[in-house]
Amino acid sequence: MKAASINLADKLATFDQHWSPRVVAEMNDVQFKLVKFEGEFVWHTHADTDEVFLVVHGEMQIGFRDRDVTLRAGEMCVVPRGVEHITRAVRECHALIVEPRGVVNTGDAGGALTAQNDRWA
Amino acid sequence: MKAASINLADKLATFDQHWSPRVVAEMNDVQFKLVKFEGEFVWHTHADTDEVFLVVHGEMQIGFRDRDVTLRAGEMCVVPRGVEHITRAVRECHALIVEPRGVVNTGDAGGALTAQNDRWA
Repeated sequence: MKAASINLADKLATFDQHWSPRVVAEMNDVQFKLVKFEGEFVWHTHADTDEVFLVVHGEMQIGFRDRDVTLRAGEMCVVPRGVEHITRAVRECHALIVEPRGVVNTGDAGGALTAQNDRWA
Repeated sequence: MKAASINLADKLATFDQHWSPRVVAEMNDVQFKLVKFEGEFVWHTHADTDEVFLVVHGEMQIGFRDRDVTLRAGEMCVVPRGVEHITRAVRECHALIVEPRGVVNTGDAGGALTAQNDRWA
C-alpha cells in the first residue's frame, strides 16, 4: 500500500454506528481506529495491553474505579493494561483509539456491545 | 503512573525547539511524540518500523522519492518501514508522531538534526 493522506473527518463521515470502531491505519502491529459513541459502555479490562484514546470531536469520560478522566478534542489518555475502565459521553463523541491489532472493544467483559474487529472505514 | 488527561496544546506550549520531538505518552512500547518544525528535514529511512505522522496544527509535506503527500490538521499518514522520506513545512507545523520507543528522528541518515531521544514534554 502506498503511503497516503488519511483525513479523519472524511473517514468519520463514512459511518454512523456507535461503539463500532473502524480501522483507518496500521503502524506495525498497532491499529488506529475511529469510534463514535454516546451514552455509557461497559466496565471492562484489557489484560495484555495499554489503550490510547484521543478525542477528535466532543467530550468523553473514561471512568476508573477510583475516579473519572474527562477528555475534550485534542486531549488523550493512556488506559494502562489490566485497569478496569468504562467510557461515556453525554453527547456524541468521536475518538481515535490506538491499540494493538486484535484487541476486542469489550475486553474481558464481552456482551452485546462487542464489536466485530478489523472493520475498516 | 495514574491515567491522566494529556492536552496536546498544553504540551506544545512547553517547548519551541524545532525538529526536537517530545514524548507525551507511551502505550506499551509505542511512543507518542509532539514535534514542531519548519523548513526541510533530511532524507532518511527507518529500516525496522513504520512511522505515523498526525498533523495537529498547520500543514506539512512528506516527500517520497516518487511523490509528495500533503497533510493538514486532522490528517495522518503512515510512512512504511524501509521507505526513504523527508518532511517539510513552509510555515511552522505541529505534528504528533507515533512510533516505537527508540526510533531516532534521522533514521539511517544521522547528522546535525539528530535529536536526543526520550525527552518528555
